[in-house]
Amino acid sequence: MIVTFLTDFGLQDDFVGTCHGVMKRIAPEAQIIDITHGISPQQVLQGALVLANTLPYMPEGVHLAVVDPGVGTERKPLALRGRDGRLYVGPDNGLLVPAAERLGGVDAAWELANADYRLDPVSSTFHGRDIFAPAAAYLAAGVEPAELGPSVDPGSLVRPDLPRPEVGDGRIVAHVLIADRFGNVQLNLAPEHLEEVGIDAGTPVEIEVGLQRFYAVAARTFADVRTGDIVLYEDAYGNISVAINAGDAAEMLATEPGDTVGIRVRP
Amino acid sequence: MIVTFLTDFGLQDDFVGTCHGVMKRIAPEAQIIDITHGISPQQVLQGALVLANTLPYMPEGVHLAVVDPGVGTERKPLALRGRDGRLYVGPDNGLLVPAAERLGGVDAAWELANADYRLDPVSSTFHGRDIFAPAAAYLAAGVEPAELGPSVDPGSLVRPDLPRPEVGDGRIVAHVLIADRFGNVQLNLAPEHLEEVGIDAGTPVEIEVGLQRFYAVAARTFADVRTGDIVLYEDAYGNISVAINAGDAAEMLATEPGDTVGIRVRP
Amino acid sequence: MIVTFLTDFGLQDDFVGTCHGVMKRIAPEAQIIDITHGISPQQVLQGALVLANTLPYMPEGVHLAVVDPGVGTERKPLALRGRDGRLYVGPDNGLLVPAAERLGGVDAAWELANADYRLDPVSSTFHGRDIFAPAAAYLAAGVEPAELGPSVDPGSLVRPDLPRPEVGDGRIVAHVLIADRFGNVQLNLAPEHLEEVGIDAGTPVEIEVGLQRFYAVAARTFADVRTGDIVLYEDAYGNISVAINAGDAAEMLATEPGDTVGIRVRP
Repeated sequence: MIVTFLTDFGLQDDFVGTCHGVMKRIAPEAQIIDITHGISPQQVLQGALVLANTLPYMPEGVHLAVVDPGVGTERKPLALRGRDGRLYVGPDNGLLVPAAERLGGVDAAWELANADYRLDPVSSTFHGRDIFAPAAAYLAAGVEPAELGPSVDPGSLVRPDLPRPEVGDGRIVAHVLIADRFGNVQLNLAPEHLEEVGIDAGTPVEIEVGLQRFYAVAARTFADVRTGDIVLYEDAYGNISVAINAGDAAEMLATEPGDTVGIRVRP
Repeated sequence: MIVTFLTDFGLQDDFVGTCHGVMKRIAPEAQIIDITHGISPQQVLQGALVLANTLPYMPEGVHLAVVDPGVGTERKPLALRGRDGRLYVGPDNGLLVPAAERLGGVDAAWELANADYRLDPVSSTFHGRDIFAPAAAYLAAGVEPAELGPSVDPGSLVRPDLPRPEVGDGRIVAHVLIADRFGNVQLNLAPEHLEEVGIDAGTPVEIEVGLQRFYAVAARTFADVRTGDIVLYEDAYGNISVAINAGDAAEMLATEPGDTVGIRVRP
Repeated sequence: MIVTFLTDFGLQDDFVGTCHGVMKRIAPEAQIIDITHGISPQQVLQGALVLANTLPYMPEGVHLAVVDPGVGTERKPLALRGRDGRLYVGPDNGLLVPAAERLGGVDAAWELANADYRLDPVSSTFHGRDIFAPAAAYLAAGVEPAELGPSVDPGSLVRPDLPRPEVGDGRIVAHVLIADRFGNVQLNLAPEHLEEVGIDAGTPVEIEVGLQRFYAVAARTFADVRTGDIVLYEDAYGNISVAINAGDAAEMLATEPGDTVGIRVRP
């Protein structure tokens, strides 16, 4: 059985390795795929987006995700089952729901309350190790999710507050979601939003970040423009991103996740 | 058979991957769990503490650890067997012993001197690849540790020099062991040390770092204090740590491993 | 079947994890060894050198490598077969050929043109996920490479432009290839080049970087010199490197890959 694993733990510390150890003790046959552990610390929305983007590429199995600023508070630890049979484990803070909804929706949910399927003792600060990893491993080993705790109404689950773009008359106000290692900046925009204001491949655009203005061009990919040009393109997950051919757009635009980015057609 | 693997190699270079390759050539059935490769370069004490903290969460197997500033010198390469049957592989510099002692003590030790279980040639600078990873893989494949080289007296093994806290009249002088990705600062203190000076959940304390003074509070977890408050708490491995709720204590305190931290009850 | 995997994707984003997921969906039995994902972004030469250095330590299998600044352009996606039977997958930009040549040469090559062995759709920017990882997984699952697309003349493959050192009268002009986590600086020099100008263990040398001059000594390993001394030595992969015993040579020399480094015997 496959367990996929996504967190904001980073790889500098032992957090990820310790969870692997916990899972392999419980489910020696489980195979763990690390989606990423590079989610920015405690950025639930970023984690939710990356999980939703990547799960369609993962084998079906148990999908463990931990980005959990509320560890130690009353937020519920959860197991979910999607309509397609996939199982999800993580905190009830909006991290899991977008991925499950992209794959057909949440069919059932349970609170991870049964102490038989936790480590003992449970620490106040590392529920990844003590609650979530054990639950994922027991599910991977064939335990029924209803064994893990009482049923929870799927309608009551916390959903993330996704920022919506404003699409107006020749101008879009979008938000930065994530910047990747190559400096490509993902926006909360789909190709349809660009079409709405008449931007397609080859359209010259102006990108506004704070008081700065950047000339850019819409293109199929950054290889279609000259080195150093800023390009607006549909990235590999179907989102609109900003890149610089052979450069670092995140650095040039100096944006952070959540920042507002204006886009208008250049006359 | 499980091999756990902890180093200061980092993940930027190929060192970790190369050792994985070496092990899988020798022991194709071995499963490798990477505990962490983010130990600060050549910080043997940090490696020893993380290994001792995490091994109780790992499946039994061969426990390979390499933090080896003495590579190329006379320090011995070792295999150890713990009283509980676990096997350890690494340099004789104090890295392995605390973990083995936490799990019951060292039962036997051998020097990795048998050239049949090393790569050929052995480089001067990468014994992880040429000596330690092969030894771990041969052990995982069922080779008896006594095959790897001559027996070593467990009493002669190098032990790390753990700094001890000074617990006085209402005041503790502790040392920083590690700071993690979230900026939580682990001290060389156990909950008993706090009890000794009358600090328990809710006690207001003052933290001294160099000439700076910080107000903090002892608490069960950082979720028990307000955002931005500094908190002294028992971390997930049973050590006392300093954190800031939704903040980065390592940055605010500006401490490095080894630094002295004073803690006193606020009147 | 083993798949080894080397990229410049880094581990902050989901790129590596997503490729793992794609491969495990196609070839559930495949075991993936991550050689490294820390190649500097788009540094094909660095990727080629690390792949050639490390493959001799890897089990035979399918060797997937992606450092691909030309993604989305006309550069061919390739599968190669080495004379020893190993299979290689990656872009036709010089990344694969040095490794294959170190292990006996390229026996046959194919362009990854068959849409049956790609994901659908293929994005413009993430061929690692959509073309290369699927090809590697199908090969690992036993698909014949000729199924993946038309044959390509091995003589027509792009080869990397390796900088050559100039070895003169008592002086060498070399280039920096890579600096590792420990600050050791690998040069494009073999031990023979040092011998040619009369440098062997114990020879005092001067290292020139830009306008700076550094005193150093040739040695078997950095453990042979005093703490803080600069040393010229044969590293674990048989290249000549510069290190500082218990220090960071890359930082002190302030070099970047590609920089020129002069070495002369001190009188």
